[in-house]
Amino acid sequence: MSLAEPSAVRRLENRQPTAFLLATIRGVGQVDLQPCLWTGAFILAALWAAGWQIGLFAALGAALSTLTAYVFGVDRPSIALGLHGYSGCLTGIALVTSLGHHPATYVLAVIGSIMCTILTMALTVLLKPYGLTALTAPFCLVSGVMVLGAPSFARIWHGAPKEVASPTSGSTAITWSDLWHGFFTNVSQIFLVDAWYVGLIMLVGLACAGVRVVLFAAAGSVVGIVAAWALGAPTALIANGIYGYNAVLVGIAIGAVFLAGTVWNGAYALLGAAVSTGLTASLTSLFKPFGGHTFTWPFILVTWVFMAAVPLLPRFRKSG
Amino acid sequence: MSLAEPSAVRRLENRQPTAFLLATIRGVGQVDLQPCLWTGAFILAALWAAGWQIGLFAALGAALSTLTAYVFGVDRPSIALGLHGYSGCLTGIALVTSLGHHPATYVLAVIGSIMCTILTMALTVLLKPYGLTALTAPFCLVSGVMVLGAPSFARIWHGAPKEVASPTSGSTAITWSDLWHGFFTNVSQIFLVDAWYVGLIMLVGLACAGVRVVLFAAAGSVVGIVAAWALGAPTALIANGIYGYNAVLVGIAIGAVFLAGTVWNGAYALLGAAVSTGLTASLTSLFKPFGGHTFTWPFILVTWVFMAAVPLLPRFRKSG
Amino acid sequence: MSLAEPSAVRRLENRQPTAFLLATIRGVGQVDLQPCLWTGAFILAALWAAGWQIGLFAALGAALSTLTAYVFGVDRPSIALGLHGYSGCLTGIALVTSLGHHPATYVLAVIGSIMCTILTMALTVLLKPYGLTALTAPFCLVSGVMVLGAPSFARIWHGAPKEVASPTSGSTAITWSDLWHGFFTNVSQIFLVDAWYVGLIMLVGLACAGVRVVLFAAAGSVVGIVAAWALGAPTALIANGIYGYNAVLVGIAIGAVFLAGTVWNGAYALLGAAVSTGLTASLTSLFKPFGGHTFTWPFILVTWVFMAAVPLLPRFRKSG
Repeated sequence: MSLAEPSAVRRLENRQPTAFLLATIRGVGQVDLQPCLWTGAFILAALWAAGWQIGLFAALGAALSTLTAYVFGVDRPSIALGLHGYSGCLTGIALVTSLGHHPATYVLAVIGSIMCTILTMALTVLLKPYGLTALTAPFCLVSGVMVLGAPSFARIWHGAPKEVASPTSGSTAITWSDLWHGFFTNVSQIFLVDAWYVGLIMLVGLACAGVRVVLFAAAGSVVGIVAAWALGAPTALIANGIYGYNAVLVGIAIGAVFLAGTVWNGAYALLGAAVSTGLTASLTSLFKPFGGHTFTWPFILVTWVFMAAVPLLPRFRKSG
Repeated sequence: MSLAEPSAVRRLENRQPTAFLLATIRGVGQVDLQPCLWTGAFILAALWAAGWQIGLFAALGAALSTLTAYVFGVDRPSIALGLHGYSGCLTGIALVTSLGHHPATYVLAVIGSIMCTILTMALTVLLKPYGLTALTAPFCLVSGVMVLGAPSFARIWHGAPKEVASPTSGSTAITWSDLWHGFFTNVSQIFLVDAWYVGLIMLVGLACAGVRVVLFAAAGSVVGIVAAWALGAPTALIANGIYGYNAVLVGIAIGAVFLAGTVWNGAYALLGAAVSTGLTASLTSLFKPFGGHTFTWPFILVTWVFMAAVPLLPRFRKSG
Repeated sequence: MSLAEPSAVRRLENRQPTAFLLATIRGVGQVDLQPCLWTGAFILAALWAAGWQIGLFAALGAALSTLTAYVFGVDRPSIALGLHGYSGCLTGIALVTSLGHHPATYVLAVIGSIMCTILTMALTVLLKPYGLTALTAPFCLVSGVMVLGAPSFARIWHGAPKEVASPTSGSTAITWSDLWHGFFTNVSQIFLVDAWYVGLIMLVGLACAGVRVVLFAAAGSVVGIVAAWALGAPTALIANGIYGYNAVLVGIAIGAVFLAGTVWNGAYALLGAAVSTGLTASLTSLFKPFGGHTFTWPFILVTWVFMAAVPLLPRFRKSG
């Protein structure tokens, strides 16, 4: 949180409805691991710019899972930081994107948001002995389960969603336009949005969270593009961000949040960003027989593995 | 254990063969998480009513895995409670149902029962730090592995088993007959049996274990039916219990065994029951490319997640 | 380490380049869980005998992942024992076997070796509470991910590898030639090599590590053949070692390394060897929709489960 938060904000948080509203906005920012209020606000605005359905379901998901945390009696400080909103936010977007805008989708968004809060707490308990956190795994699990099961149910299934892009074919020639499009859509694809200006607004939001955050987000995006190009990925998938959004998240998480700011740590973060790019292809192939939902699994798995190893790799050092 | 157990039973347990017999019968009841002797006896009778092969393999599996626990030196109190019989019981049923009644199936039942005991202990060690138990996961793992590998081996494979029902198609119109059939087959499908009278006898057995147990079993069954109907599942699959057996188990486990008897806890158990119903479709789709063996995974996963989260959700409280 | 190591070797280890060289050779032997220098040397020679590409990539992989451990500051004693070379060694072989001998394969071998060291440390942290070790899981994960993702990338994919043998069909008549071929290829298939003389040289190397090691390796190989024959596996797959290499590893690991030398423990190890043979078919079927990469997963899963259960099975006792 680089921007000073006026004491007015702090005072507002003592009032119940305002506290809830601020926690929800922070929840949107926590998708990028940032509790900064401005980051959440910029990202939420970017999502509305991507389309009212996406903006609405992102806000609904973040609000509902935050509300669930209140109702279930979760400790207030973690709620205030937005830690119970981010998985619901992404789940809302994934549901409306995958299942379409139907009344049943609203019902599923409610159930999905409740499940996100339960899963966040379950994973927090399971991962605590290893010093790891849940990251966006609750979102991936809830959305994966729902999208996988949906075609079995007549009342929630309204035909196949638009074809998921396949990472296995296509030209590898690359242009300047592909490159700068990819740089920004890598940021927006974290939220399943393929639009460069949405990514640009989000980067502005990340800049509010601090120079190091936005630098590692940008570096992750560049590494994702370079790695995908070096491997020989189809240009179309580089340009629309499919191969880079996990690299952005890994860059932020390892580079700017979990590890201290040393050169070795930075190199470790960028290695993780490159690895997540390759892993994206593997997981997409793995999930293909079931319908193809990679979501942010590459980011989650790389960050868990890289961070779990740190206690035995003295070259690297956790932050704080 | 609501029925008073006469001291005669206690005395009998001191004799080796009788102790073994009682542990085996209790093992059958432990499939529904009940150590009550009468519950086990009623359920075993119901399984024989479903067919002699099912009754025989259920008894064999429970006896063999209990025997393995004796031979491997497992602590006696947990054996006496039937905690080493329930996975073997289900494995026996799954093997004779999936592979047919052949000499090779008896051999596999022996190996499967030994593996159930080893896996139960391994999972007990792995899950202990989180206060979780193995549930029926040893059964799901052993049976899943055996049924998956069987077609590769000429001496144990005698042609494809009867088609597993697909949850992805069929009419959703529902009748009174479908409803009450589903209510009872939800209980019998826990043991892979599709017969309402088998479920009825089992419910009588569960009633021996206490009012709260039978009430939550019934409530789980109702929630399973309602959830499947609301989602738009094919009626045929509701009526034969495919969508509700996990809900019954979740109802018993969270509602009557692991959590204390509060209104919030009851609501949490029924939410879990509903979630397990949806999860059944997802896992069936997930396992389909490999041959389709959902077994009781939805119950296991929901119960693990819901119970793992409880320490961080002060609204809910563990029993005892 | 049954062979006395002259103090000259110890003195050499104090010099940096020699220490690195010895750690690399020991790393090759650690694939069979043996830190003995002679075992590593014999196995490395056997791999060169199998083909210069296999020998080269095995040495490269072991050297690179050992080097990574030095660079990342891993504790020296574990490096000296070869504990950071074995996964890289197998990864090198898997990559050149699956992707062919191309410049890109060298680059992937570097990245794969780095990832092996990170994954080894991550798994060491995750498994420590249970007294388990990483075994060859880092190799299986890195190679599995790379082979799965490779077809998506134009610059590293040069056409489908040669067909993976299917364990689901073929004659089950067996000859003396099949039997002794299988006995030795069971040992060489640990390194993805199908050649009886390679297995023979490796057995000589294992004999250098001690009588108990080579006896349990041989017993595991025999159990693997008998179990596969009893189940009715196709003879061709028994003869080329597909069904027995996991049994050899389980025999060594449980029989000669992790458990004390008692009759019960030996029986437990051979039960594990038989179970790993059956599990090989199940996992091969499981991985088939994605391209079929069983690697040493059956060994890893059986050893983890069997060893995790030991603390609750007083019949068996850990070594040391």
